[in-house]
Amino acid sequence: MLILISGPSGSGKGTVCARLMENFPDLDLKLSVSATTRPPRPGEVHGRDYFFMSREEFEKLVAEGGFLEWAPIYGYFYGTPAGPVRDALARGESVVLEIDVQGGLQIKEQFPDAVLIFLIPPSRKVLRDRLISRGTDSRAEIEKRMIWVDTELSFMFRYDYILVNDRLGDTVFKVRCILEAERSRARRFTLPGGWRT
Amino acid sequence: MLILISGPSGSGKGTVCARLMENFPDLDLKLSVSATTRPPRPGEVHGRDYFFMSREEFEKLVAEGGFLEWAPIYGYFYGTPAGPVRDALARGESVVLEIDVQGGLQIKEQFPDAVLIFLIPPSRKVLRDRLISRGTDSRAEIEKRMIWVDTELSFMFRYDYILVNDRLGDTVFKVRCILEAERSRARRFTLPGGWRT
Repeated sequence: MLILISGPSGSGKGTVCARLMENFPDLDLKLSVSATTRPPRPGEVHGRDYFFMSREEFEKLVAEGGFLEWAPIYGYFYGTPAGPVRDALARGESVVLEIDVQGGLQIKEQFPDAVLIFLIPPSRKVLRDRLISRGTDSRAEIEKRMIWVDTELSFMFRYDYILVNDRLGDTVFKVRCILEAERSRARRFTLPGGWRT
Repeated sequence: MLILISGPSGSGKGTVCARLMENFPDLDLKLSVSATTRPPRPGEVHGRDYFFMSREEFEKLVAEGGFLEWAPIYGYFYGTPAGPVRDALARGESVVLEIDVQGGLQIKEQFPDAVLIFLIPPSRKVLRDRLISRGTDSRAEIEKRMIWVDTELSFMFRYDYILVNDRLGDTVFKVRCILEAERSRARRFTLPGGWRT
């Protein structure tokens, strides 16, 4: 199963993904690591948070068809390396992708069975406050992000699920429920051995 | 939200519904009570387990359009009184219906947004054992039920979710997750006040 978690910058999607992996090892999820040309923020680790690449390296991988999707966002390139995702799915594992809304919809076209979850902060004000207190973006960048948010929200209803990320614990529990529910979908069901005749 | 819980006789749907109401009062669910012409089993209470009716009373209600669905099952009539369900949904409450598979699919036609959950015992053998140990049905009745099961299973894939009811606690948790997930569906989402401009 492929699970896509999207939301505006500042929606807390990274934290939700991290908590999900941490709290529910029983779900046996694999977090896909994206590639980006954006420079690392303090504390970010290559190969854990992102594969940090030069623009040249990124473009080479694009040319080789090495991405499931890629897009420029706020002047940098972001992409989802195809290999690790395809391998994990082939092994029957569940893969979680933290991805922007455009990328999410591109992947849904290739994997119609993917589960799309959109996270939205409780309000415009909360989002702006989160971006400011993160302290990684300039005032001008924050305003750019706030303008972009309305575009993202206009795509939101193409997702399967929308969660207001108010309290982290509640949101993580809801995502867990969505995964549990999706695993019980009739279209994914196979009759247990004791029913075959 | 309307939640339909179906499954063969002996799948444990009654117990799952009862546990759901008991364990999760926070979900604010209302259990719909069916009407039947079948005589009460020991311990069953009129108005709690079923509305027990004579055949004449049942047919009068049918003629008045008082059922969402009704059907003959194993020689008795069963039906879902329409009034209480319509009233609860109009008040914005969530209603749980424990219902046979034919009835479930009839209701889905009238309420396309209804969530259909099918419970299946882990195996044919477990089902037969449960029916025998329940001690309420004759040997011949049990065999009739076992034959009917294959018809029910053939409708199963029209449901939204299928759960193997092996351990009661797991099944109840999964139903809870399904309800949580369904409440977060994009098509049921309304943008919080802090996002309107």
